[in-house]
Amino acid sequence: MIIPTIGDMLRAHERIKPHIHKTPVLTSSYFNELTGAELFFKCENFQKAGVFKARGASNAVFSLGNDMLEKGVATHSSGNHALSLSYAAGRRGIPCTVVMPRTAPQAKKDAVKGYGGRIIECEPSTSSREAVFAEVVAETGAEFVHPYNDHRVIAGQGTCSNELLKQVEGLDAVIAPIGGGGMVSGTCLTLSNLAPEVKIYAAEPEQADDAMRSFKAGHIIADDAPETIADGLKVPLKDLTWHFVSNHVSDILTVSEQEIIDAMKLIWKRMKIVMEPSSAVPLAAIIKNKDTFAGKRVGIIITGGNVDLDLLPWLKN
Amino acid sequence: MIIPTIGDMLRAHERIKPHIHKTPVLTSSYFNELTGAELFFKCENFQKAGVFKARGASNAVFSLGNDMLEKGVATHSSGNHALSLSYAAGRRGIPCTVVMPRTAPQAKKDAVKGYGGRIIECEPSTSSREAVFAEVVAETGAEFVHPYNDHRVIAGQGTCSNELLKQVEGLDAVIAPIGGGGMVSGTCLTLSNLAPEVKIYAAEPEQADDAMRSFKAGHIIADDAPETIADGLKVPLKDLTWHFVSNHVSDILTVSEQEIIDAMKLIWKRMKIVMEPSSAVPLAAIIKNKDTFAGKRVGIIITGGNVDLDLLPWLKN
Repeated sequence: MIIPTIGDMLRAHERIKPHIHKTPVLTSSYFNELTGAELFFKCENFQKAGVFKARGASNAVFSLGNDMLEKGVATHSSGNHALSLSYAAGRRGIPCTVVMPRTAPQAKKDAVKGYGGRIIECEPSTSSREAVFAEVVAETGAEFVHPYNDHRVIAGQGTCSNELLKQVEGLDAVIAPIGGGGMVSGTCLTLSNLAPEVKIYAAEPEQADDAMRSFKAGHIIADDAPETIADGLKVPLKDLTWHFVSNHVSDILTVSEQEIIDAMKLIWKRMKIVMEPSSAVPLAAIIKNKDTFAGKRVGIIITGGNVDLDLLPWLKN
Repeated sequence: MIIPTIGDMLRAHERIKPHIHKTPVLTSSYFNELTGAELFFKCENFQKAGVFKARGASNAVFSLGNDMLEKGVATHSSGNHALSLSYAAGRRGIPCTVVMPRTAPQAKKDAVKGYGGRIIECEPSTSSREAVFAEVVAETGAEFVHPYNDHRVIAGQGTCSNELLKQVEGLDAVIAPIGGGGMVSGTCLTLSNLAPEVKIYAAEPEQADDAMRSFKAGHIIADDAPETIADGLKVPLKDLTWHFVSNHVSDILTVSEQEIIDAMKLIWKRMKIVMEPSSAVPLAAIIKNKDTFAGKRVGIIITGGNVDLDLLPWLKN
């Protein structure tokens, strides 16, 4: 296990600056009144590839040695990491192979291809995915970039809070959604070193509350197959992200599916931004725990904006 | 007819600055590649009340003399002007009365009330609206603020381009949607004085193309009841807006309903912003007329973001 340092994060930031957006911070008098807190929305939905993961993926891709450039990178993902790694590899002009279940939505396959990624299909099972992925790595010699349990990825995600600290003075807390813990770990890395007075909160769906239960138990608990509309948050913590979460997070708050949908729709309506269900989880947690945040200056990471506009959750009924 | 001057616009900007957002300008490498132009999206969907009309309404409200403060302002509108005038009146702490058809959506009534406006209902007919509005003015003595055919309103809308000129250097053109012509007139006022080298285009739905036909004919043609999903663009030009449009606009481009819907969905998907059908009309026109804009630096006014999230046009079928 390689634990990234604050120096790694700062070097990552210099490395990836030409390839990512410095995303804007939006405020909303409506949400400030609603919550009693002063909220600063860090809009990673406006990030390259539509998600914060472009940061970590870019850092992994642009820190590869010259000997790896022909072999490229590979991963297995049907989501935002596949997009982000394809984006970053495209920027560097190296191959990117993504193993994806053949049942994944065509729109996601098209998006990966749009960024120049090569898709190898597997059956929708863990055994098939692992077998196909092993073949891909054996054949290509590509570097595996894990979506979150990777020191380069975490150092890259930490650049988000590094920007936020320069954009907003006097923060009392930062809150981000937690799935595998990549964004939260990067946030911990940056804040624990550069602004240790800022409290770090994570927010999670009740229906995928393995991070909260791990946090209470003191060791990783991995659910098998949680179901939530916040589909980026179904994956479990791993050793590297557990290191950061267990050492630096103040609390993990959970919210119901309906609370996520309500917060998501309210953000779209009042702030006029498109963001994923996962990104609504922190605001839902603040609305549910007003006393914890009232009177505080709170950064909220809006993690991504890749949502299927034909399947909005408040229209499902 | 009082024609506002560039001095009026500059004084309006000083007057309303505490009450409006200086809205951000977003760019998109995706849309630059798609169109061959360099596009700068001026995001008035992030404006107070969710729409550029907060500028003109604020200027009208904050330039009222002290003798009018008790009587307040009034208008008839079931849309963005009603919201914006209620917002501005609320900021100044004066009464705002809005005459609205009793059949208007409850959500719009609630939004006006949310900003502190008082609603007087009329029947959904022009005769009822005029009769009820005349009663309201007789009873309250309130100042009528027309949605666009008003020199204070046009001077206020002109502050949008005044910001844009400082945010983006070397613009070749600016394009905005046209309904009654308030935003386009404000744009003409500012650019013809401060940056006369910048061409001004207007964009309109084919199904509500009265401005284009007026432009070609050389006099105002008012359609009776055009039908388009770009519901902010159904109203006709009036003498004051015709003055600006006929003198300063280079061309008026039209697009079909499907082209509006496609452009709207594509903006949501790629730029992660929520905006109204009306706001998609200019980008649809650029996509349809690539040769006119290729190689140019073009400002696009995203006029507003007040859309019913339960009734998105691409989900209607």
